[in-house]
Amino acid sequence: MKKICIFIGSRANYSSIKAVMRAIQKHPELELQVVAGASAVLDRYGSVINLIEQDGFSVVARVHMLIEGETPTTMAKSTGLGLIELPTIFESIKPDIVLTVGDRFETMATTLAAAYMNIPIAHTMGGEVSGTIDESIRHAITKFAHIHFPASRDAYERIVKLGEPEPSVHLVGCPRMDLVAEMLSVSRSEVDESIFRLGVGDRVDIDKPFVLVSQHPVTTEYGTGREQITATLQAVKNIGLPAIVLWPNADAGSDDIAKGIRIWREKGLDTDMHFFKNLPISTYVQLMKRTKCLVGNSSSGIREGAFIGTPVVNIGTRQAGRERGSNVIDTGNDADEIASAIQKQLSHGPYGFEPIYGDGTAGEKIADILSRTVVQLQKRITY
Amino acid sequence: MKKICIFIGSRANYSSIKAVMRAIQKHPELELQVVAGASAVLDRYGSVINLIEQDGFSVVARVHMLIEGETPTTMAKSTGLGLIELPTIFESIKPDIVLTVGDRFETMATTLAAAYMNIPIAHTMGGEVSGTIDESIRHAITKFAHIHFPASRDAYERIVKLGEPEPSVHLVGCPRMDLVAEMLSVSRSEVDESIFRLGVGDRVDIDKPFVLVSQHPVTTEYGTGREQITATLQAVKNIGLPAIVLWPNADAGSDDIAKGIRIWREKGLDTDMHFFKNLPISTYVQLMKRTKCLVGNSSSGIREGAFIGTPVVNIGTRQAGRERGSNVIDTGNDADEIASAIQKQLSHGPYGFEPIYGDGTAGEKIADILSRTVVQLQKRITY
Amino acid sequence: MKKICIFIGSRANYSSIKAVMRAIQKHPELELQVVAGASAVLDRYGSVINLIEQDGFSVVARVHMLIEGETPTTMAKSTGLGLIELPTIFESIKPDIVLTVGDRFETMATTLAAAYMNIPIAHTMGGEVSGTIDESIRHAITKFAHIHFPASRDAYERIVKLGEPEPSVHLVGCPRMDLVAEMLSVSRSEVDESIFRLGVGDRVDIDKPFVLVSQHPVTTEYGTGREQITATLQAVKNIGLPAIVLWPNADAGSDDIAKGIRIWREKGLDTDMHFFKNLPISTYVQLMKRTKCLVGNSSSGIREGAFIGTPVVNIGTRQAGRERGSNVIDTGNDADEIASAIQKQLSHGPYGFEPIYGDGTAGEKIADILSRTVVQLQKRITY
Amino acid sequence: MKKICIFIGSRANYSSIKAVMRAIQKHPELELQVVAGASAVLDRYGSVINLIEQDGFSVVARVHMLIEGETPTTMAKSTGLGLIELPTIFESIKPDIVLTVGDRFETMATTLAAAYMNIPIAHTMGGEVSGTIDESIRHAITKFAHIHFPASRDAYERIVKLGEPEPSVHLVGCPRMDLVAEMLSVSRSEVDESIFRLGVGDRVDIDKPFVLVSQHPVTTEYGTGREQITATLQAVKNIGLPAIVLWPNADAGSDDIAKGIRIWREKGLDTDMHFFKNLPISTYVQLMKRTKCLVGNSSSGIREGAFIGTPVVNIGTRQAGRERGSNVIDTGNDADEIASAIQKQLSHGPYGFEPIYGDGTAGEKIADILSRTVVQLQKRITY
Repeated sequence: MKKICIFIGSRANYSSIKAVMRAIQKHPELELQVVAGASAVLDRYGSVINLIEQDGFSVVARVHMLIEGETPTTMAKSTGLGLIELPTIFESIKPDIVLTVGDRFETMATTLAAAYMNIPIAHTMGGEVSGTIDESIRHAITKFAHIHFPASRDAYERIVKLGEPEPSVHLVGCPRMDLVAEMLSVSRSEVDESIFRLGVGDRVDIDKPFVLVSQHPVTTEYGTGREQITATLQAVKNIGLPAIVLWPNADAGSDDIAKGIRIWREKGLDTDMHFFKNLPISTYVQLMKRTKCLVGNSSSGIREGAFIGTPVVNIGTRQAGRERGSNVIDTGNDADEIASAIQKQLSHGPYGFEPIYGDGTAGEKIADILSRTVVQLQKRITY
Repeated sequence: MKKICIFIGSRANYSSIKAVMRAIQKHPELELQVVAGASAVLDRYGSVINLIEQDGFSVVARVHMLIEGETPTTMAKSTGLGLIELPTIFESIKPDIVLTVGDRFETMATTLAAAYMNIPIAHTMGGEVSGTIDESIRHAITKFAHIHFPASRDAYERIVKLGEPEPSVHLVGCPRMDLVAEMLSVSRSEVDESIFRLGVGDRVDIDKPFVLVSQHPVTTEYGTGREQITATLQAVKNIGLPAIVLWPNADAGSDDIAKGIRIWREKGLDTDMHFFKNLPISTYVQLMKRTKCLVGNSSSGIREGAFIGTPVVNIGTRQAGRERGSNVIDTGNDADEIASAIQKQLSHGPYGFEPIYGDGTAGEKIADILSRTVVQLQKRITY
Repeated sequence: MKKICIFIGSRANYSSIKAVMRAIQKHPELELQVVAGASAVLDRYGSVINLIEQDGFSVVARVHMLIEGETPTTMAKSTGLGLIELPTIFESIKPDIVLTVGDRFETMATTLAAAYMNIPIAHTMGGEVSGTIDESIRHAITKFAHIHFPASRDAYERIVKLGEPEPSVHLVGCPRMDLVAEMLSVSRSEVDESIFRLGVGDRVDIDKPFVLVSQHPVTTEYGTGREQITATLQAVKNIGLPAIVLWPNADAGSDDIAKGIRIWREKGLDTDMHFFKNLPISTYVQLMKRTKCLVGNSSSGIREGAFIGTPVVNIGTRQAGRERGSNVIDTGNDADEIASAIQKQLSHGPYGFEPIYGDGTAGEKIADILSRTVVQLQKRITY
Repeated sequence: MKKICIFIGSRANYSSIKAVMRAIQKHPELELQVVAGASAVLDRYGSVINLIEQDGFSVVARVHMLIEGETPTTMAKSTGLGLIELPTIFESIKPDIVLTVGDRFETMATTLAAAYMNIPIAHTMGGEVSGTIDESIRHAITKFAHIHFPASRDAYERIVKLGEPEPSVHLVGCPRMDLVAEMLSVSRSEVDESIFRLGVGDRVDIDKPFVLVSQHPVTTEYGTGREQITATLQAVKNIGLPAIVLWPNADAGSDDIAKGIRIWREKGLDTDMHFFKNLPISTYVQLMKRTKCLVGNSSSGIREGAFIGTPVVNIGTRQAGRERGSNVIDTGNDADEIASAIQKQLSHGPYGFEPIYGDGTAGEKIADILSRTVVQLQKRITY
């Protein structure tokens, strides 16, 4: 049995890799080792670890590695703490391959720990282009990884250009689409008013037109988050539709955005708005299907958006360079500009399906390749 | 004044960047901030920090970050510890640019700390190709760096292919050559018998033919170091010339090589051999000039070797892919093969100068570029 | 100038030492060095660091040392992280004396760092007796400290019995009482309805009878916090008076209590109750003056309570062994028992002043002693 | 089965507890969990971990926690690193009791980790008095420990005075004496010239009179170690007997003493002297039996010395206050004073047996008590 270790560091991580975890667990020649850490083990981010266990996966180790503060400094230090903790775990569970997801700072810690310890590394979601420090982390991880699972054609080509040997790069699509496909197949009636028992603020009638807001900090623009979220909320307010607003990710600068939201509420500007810290991903996908427009800088607008056909207004630099479908309108961080883009999307209505980030079968493809691949530990750039 | 912070983590680091430090210190628009850490602050690696201060540089902070053990696990953890310590220092000295050197694990910690903290990163010695995990670290650092100072044409082209914008890549040569040029200009008589007051073993007559041995662990071949050094020492023994042998670097696996040397000595096989833990770089350069053959896997054979014209037998995978001159013969880790390559070099004698790794003016070029460059913090791959 | 370094790790820490900080700052021969860390630097605990700066103190360094999770494991690890960070700071600011406060885990880190680095240690609030792990930490710190500032006669005697030389033990009273005296001297009208702009829940008329609840986790009874707070809330409910409820401290087990409160609210049992995460200490003191009864396990009931004369129902083991006045009735963690004790206090009404924990002049006494004391670094038990 | 976890952090630790480990392993109701860390896992301190395994114990986890440098700062940081690592291990092996040994900094980390995690703590060698920071650490650990195993009557009484409940204090003697008794029972001929295959310097004829030197740094006198060892070596030189000299422990200041020894040797003053980094404890005991005089500040002179009857010259403050037999003469750090004390011991010759530190049966007593004791987790001072 080949032991595949997956580190889950956040709710987003988990939904990006859950389809792969399932496929590994089913595969006769693979053994799954789940390590949970960072925000995934914390109550205040919704205890993703419980979710993981409820879904039938067993967690072999948990790593408390987040140093409180959510500043650039604590982000660096948290990575450091992860690098101190993870080798102890890898020494004890001895994985054959470590599979890392995406481009967050905990991914960097996982990757470095495995690299120093001569454990082969597989990587999903490499080769994409975006803003923030994730851009550097993602390509750096590619330079450590031995097996690559890009989600789109564009990303595939970029990884090869980065000097990775073609046989090690596998275009499989994004495993999140496997889940999205599944979630869209359930009845529309599964999401109803009961979701508003959680969160705070006014209830929104989700059978009528509403806007969905999901905006995260841009780490290279640290200190501007409060202004940015305020512009977005102002734009939504001006449009006059009710809105469902999501809390930002744990990242350098999220306190800043959180403060922006809190001040907005304290000023009493939050009528017809409801705020969620965490939403089950299935609920979120249903909301993406129903909303008149998704506003913010979440990657979901571009990725799941293309699959679902959601009209999206994508703000600022955070998703710059990411391959996107016709469903996305890009704008700057200006309330008027944002409002006018939302207006355009309201006139257009829903878009058709575009399979840019996969067709919903990535999980099984990845498990299969992992079971077959023999890794050459010493990497060598191809040029 | 633009503040340029340089982290020195080892003796090798220091000689790779000393010429740049001097040029920065002289430059009217630059301020130098030296941080010393890792093995550079330790007595048992020869207290490089004292050397730095004797050379007229002041050290603004020191970082104890090496966790004892020198296994892959402690190497990862030491990087983690560096990542916990360095942000505190950067917060306090607020550099405008962090200049990182090469591809060691402490370089990775410096790079990540700066990257998370939104401090622009300059990098020397990027774009080269070699064996071991350094290969991955080096290219990963390139993906974080904003200004690149490759040492050779080959390296320059590789960095551009890695998707870095051409205007950010500057072919300046290796700053070590600045020092080598200077050291070779002093009289040959500066190195004499007195060097044997340090180290252990028999004295070697350096006015007669002798072999120089410098062999380091290959981290991806962890556990084989003892065999490898034994094969090399056996080959040298078979040739019959006296030998000067250098102790390995602090790295995963160096205990293994050290043990090989210790057992060799305990068996009494060390006649006509002298062993040094540390040599002043100027002495080493003089020995490279005089030796009949440099044997091992040190990068100096390939880099300084090309500049000096030293006959080199390069063993194993550690320097694989590095651009090299006609002075190098490559072999595997086999005593007979090594002995026969040494024999060939003895017949050939010294080689001519080849400026593959610079012409001795890198320091000033780098300082000048640092003073002029305006950095765009948000990186974006070029393709 | 003698440099006195004080580490502030929480809001409670700050109010325990603020009077001393003021006196040091005024003293002609002393220089104050404030280091802020642990929860004191975090937004979600009310950014005590801003308060410190608004009060006219400058903070020379900040330490992010809290690892998220608030379990026994992360508490240990956070202490470890503090021990990695603090020596760097002490090396840079070179204090002559480190003054540590009380018995929290960050206090242990401060103490150990200073002890290993041969920096003399002064300690306030030593020698007292209480439940939880604080009991061990407090006495252990006494064994490291060179100058002792107990708050009560009892505590003084206990420190001497612990083998500390009598000349090093100074009975000065608790510096918090300095602040309480000051706060009580301002007009009653300073606290009004406006405090309810913060927190959540129903408003309470503070001119009419109300109960004040402040209950923290008992670390040696980890896992029982939810039950305990529920019993307390039930007792208060049964009494029928409105209540002001404070959120627990950050400590192992506080999530548990927080969850108890959250479930209480979700069940809709929170009518006539208002919940605060943080209250300005001055507001809290005014509420202690006005409340019919303080219920819970906060040390304030026993300490400030004796000074103010507040009727207190003290629940469970957390304050066991602490010297107390006639204003306190002790009970177990049982709703009925608690309710009947509250009833007794309602019948009794306010108590008279008892100066068990000082007369409000501790700050100046401590500063004076610090300025005069010459410390013998090598400690030796007296028996 | 009650799981007893013992952390071994150094060679000295190991010989202090080995007899207990054996007795636990034999005990039908106890399960032994050995964790090795600090210098015990390092090659350069003689890989104590291999010794442990050769002795038939299995090591369940190893902790790399020593940060290189051996300064007060790194000692504090190493404790911090231990506090980050150990909770992960305790979480995984879930001991019922953690047994800590003595008073070194790694003991502090073990103790704090267990204390925060609500694991009962047993402690050997508490209650003694000595110099250096060990004095504070030892008594602080007593304040955390739930079961105490003092080695001498004096120590027993001191622990009770420190406020520990008498039923929790057990006078059992020092477990090292169990080993000493055993070692002395083997034939004198077991130690011969072959020991000089290790170490460096001249061979010493151990069948003729010789002096044994063992001197460690005094942490509260950091920076004076070089002078101190030089005075001692000078005194020995003046006496004119050959000497066997032991290298210092890893501790803040040991580099300083090591440097003193190195300079002594480089000056060529080391005739008739042999230097050992590590000696098997059995060899050391045999040398203590044979030497004319043990010189330095090692606790072995006082403890094993009383059992064996070795004439001892004890230098400086390191052992101040430790209960001692008639075999010890105390002196200051002055070469003449030391020499004259040695002279007195040469005239006196060997002393008789004094069972101050136990009669050689501590191991079994401790195991028995551990198996029977029910621990009350919440500690409370007795006065």
